[in-house]
Amino acid sequence: MAGTDHRRFDAGDNGGGGPAIILVDPQLGENIGMAARAMLNCGLTDLRLVRPRDGWPNARAVATASGADVVLDAARSFETTEDAIADLTLVFAATTRDRDMIKRSYSPEQAAQAFLREDHSGVIFGGEAWGLHNDDIALAEHVITVPLNPGFSSLNLSQAVLLIGYEWYKAGRDAPPPELRMTGTRPASKKELVAMFEHLESALDDSGFMHIREKRSIMARNLRNMLQRAELTEKEVRTLRGVIASLAAHKPDE
Amino acid sequence: MAGTDHRRFDAGDNGGGGPAIILVDPQLGENIGMAARAMLNCGLTDLRLVRPRDGWPNARAVATASGADVVLDAARSFETTEDAIADLTLVFAATTRDRDMIKRSYSPEQAAQAFLREDHSGVIFGGEAWGLHNDDIALAEHVITVPLNPGFSSLNLSQAVLLIGYEWYKAGRDAPPPELRMTGTRPASKKELVAMFEHLESALDDSGFMHIREKRSIMARNLRNMLQRAELTEKEVRTLRGVIASLAAHKPDE
Repeated sequence: MAGTDHRRFDAGDNGGGGPAIILVDPQLGENIGMAARAMLNCGLTDLRLVRPRDGWPNARAVATASGADVVLDAARSFETTEDAIADLTLVFAATTRDRDMIKRSYSPEQAAQAFLREDHSGVIFGGEAWGLHNDDIALAEHVITVPLNPGFSSLNLSQAVLLIGYEWYKAGRDAPPPELRMTGTRPASKKELVAMFEHLESALDDSGFMHIREKRSIMARNLRNMLQRAELTEKEVRTLRGVIASLAAHKPDE
Repeated sequence: MAGTDHRRFDAGDNGGGGPAIILVDPQLGENIGMAARAMLNCGLTDLRLVRPRDGWPNARAVATASGADVVLDAARSFETTEDAIADLTLVFAATTRDRDMIKRSYSPEQAAQAFLREDHSGVIFGGEAWGLHNDDIALAEHVITVPLNPGFSSLNLSQAVLLIGYEWYKAGRDAPPPELRMTGTRPASKKELVAMFEHLESALDDSGFMHIREKRSIMARNLRNMLQRAELTEKEVRTLRGVIASLAAHKPDE
């Protein structure tokens, strides 16, 4: 996670900080809190609420935000969707249902690219009960549709926020290849590996495991293959050599 | 959404149906239900629970699953993580924290590619309170780490399930990569691997390698970690057991 772009985590500044999240007619404080948590997970901090049913602030939102207070504290409440998005220049409406409106439909991934290009963007989400009104959708340039199981595509509000935030967070970063985490050690050199293989093979010669001569080289090759797939560290090679030595030296009970 | 691959939505069949989701020590039924909903959003149906705190089935889970009954009805409860993953051949541990264990760390996107190649895969998630125990992580081949705001990376349980399911769902919509097939063998099951680990650990108890009591569990965990990174086949597990038996039985020259 080194080299993170800190520009993105400046609270309260939507310029370059990713899309604002606008919740229209949200009902449950729990969902607002979980949405705030999901936002901060993705480095988003600009939360705007339109007519929250139970008023604002809301203690239940604090409970489920699990510490994402920076988002809740900066959240603003508005009377209309128009007011909430007044300063934005690119707005998407999150919707799973097909509407009788001609809009370009973006995936969260495609929308993320647009957020990177546009400093004052936002996404509007409908409430738990009805989703977005057509009038709200009509305020948006485009819609975002999440690719999901068509037989069961209704997302919890905070889950929808998370997926859009997640794609934004990922965008622009190339995923590094799977990284082998190691602390206090380094990958084993070939020299160390081969010495370990020879140690093992010699112990197996002694124990009689390699006694079928014409199979010895195949057997040794198989063992080398499987152990090399593990991409062992230097420390692990030493551990395995300890294991081999211990097993080989032990005199079993008669 | 036309042309969806319906193969994926056969409930209760993990073959080709994406990863099993294994929740270890889950506490709140609400979170189990939301995880089930997130799973079905992504076409996943194989839910396994290890020691759910409030028992199983759980009425609160039904309430928050919002209709994902097919997942809850087929969910199975287990006493141990080993039992829950016994039939799987590729297991990831979902973790946000760095552990002092050498594992390859995948993004959800990279893990999704692995799920497409491997029919009997799974992801284990820790409970709300403590996350996964190191012993559970040691049962996994690899870890999944979600790229998130490093200053606030703790995900709600169902959110973590969603992100991993979402990437799996997305991955299958592109042409899947050519299937990797091995001739004359198959990936080892967890049951076979754990039996091999126990064989090795017992031989090392006898030989005195594990004699420092307080280090025994760390040593065993390290050995499990390194051998699992090799993604062994069933045949290779048999070979290694032959190696262990041969070394342990051999009486060295005095």
